[in-house]
Amino acid sequence: MNLESKIRIIEDFPKKGISFKDITTLLEDKAAFKYTIDSFSELLKDKDIDIVVGPEARGFMFGTPLAYALGAGFVPARKKGKLPCDTLSIEYGLEYGKDVIEIHKDAIKPGQKVAIIDDLLATGGTIEAVTKLVEEMGGEVVSINFLIELTGLNGREKLEKYDINSLVTYEF
Amino acid sequence: MNLESKIRIIEDFPKKGISFKDITTLLEDKAAFKYTIDSFSELLKDKDIDIVVGPEARGFMFGTPLAYALGAGFVPARKKGKLPCDTLSIEYGLEYGKDVIEIHKDAIKPGQKVAIIDDLLATGGTIEAVTKLVEEMGGEVVSINFLIELTGLNGREKLEKYDINSLVTYEF
Repeated sequence: MNLESKIRIIEDFPKKGISFKDITTLLEDKAAFKYTIDSFSELLKDKDIDIVVGPEARGFMFGTPLAYALGAGFVPARKKGKLPCDTLSIEYGLEYGKDVIEIHKDAIKPGQKVAIIDDLLATGGTIEAVTKLVEEMGGEVVSINFLIELTGLNGREKLEKYDINSLVTYEF
Repeated sequence: MNLESKIRIIEDFPKKGISFKDITTLLEDKAAFKYTIDSFSELLKDKDIDIVVGPEARGFMFGTPLAYALGAGFVPARKKGKLPCDTLSIEYGLEYGKDVIEIHKDAIKPGQKVAIIDDLLATGGTIEAVTKLVEEMGGEVVSINFLIELTGLNGREKLEKYDINSLVTYEF
């Protein structure tokens, strides 16, 4: 299936000059959504994944169905203050400024095999931060998965020690 | 399976006096998570659901795997300004103040059968707003689903014209 044709491009969102990749048109298309989750599941089915981690909020939309398809658990990585129990948190750089992402401290057990998933790889800053949290808890990052990869922003280079899958690629 | 035993209770979060139902312990337990999604899927499998709608952000965590399990599409209901294309939006009352929720204008087609899902039914304000948006687009709300129902806040009464499923009940 040509997944690229299911992604809507919105120019100048959220600000001028950005060509936003709108994945809601893919999600609402039942065949495209099923094909997407099945594609990730096929790539990971022999890797004994215990936990899928997805960052807020679009990572939840691919991470929970992938966890369900694999028979794994799901752990959300959330923005500061959203998780109710004790967390590990990490600050990471954005294009302008900084942000913080958190995971519950007891969510991943040492030795668990973890797949990380998000909708889009750009600079890789968020996902690099998530890998650090997972590894600090003793989890093994087995695979990192994106629906969309924007090339030309060095995201893949930042994550080069990991096994990375992406289903659709755009030049930035 | 006793799903209640998989939900962690956190007292005084996000503020004093609130007994918060933490569903992350259920999500990270692969058997409990699979059982949860399979339970909803079993309830809905003969209803020809075209679209599952879930509100930001915990509604995404149950809505996308349910859509996948049913072979349906998923439509997110998001907070103001998060969706990139033209939206229908609605203001609704909270305990203190108001909030706005939005759906993409073209996300639901007239006549489509819609299941709505969220983690928790309290006063029902958010989900009542979502039903109005779905119906304004011509969708048919076939079923409303919650992992947790808090009784004593009149949420079920507010949504009484709909078919409501909940898997775990607490007295507020």
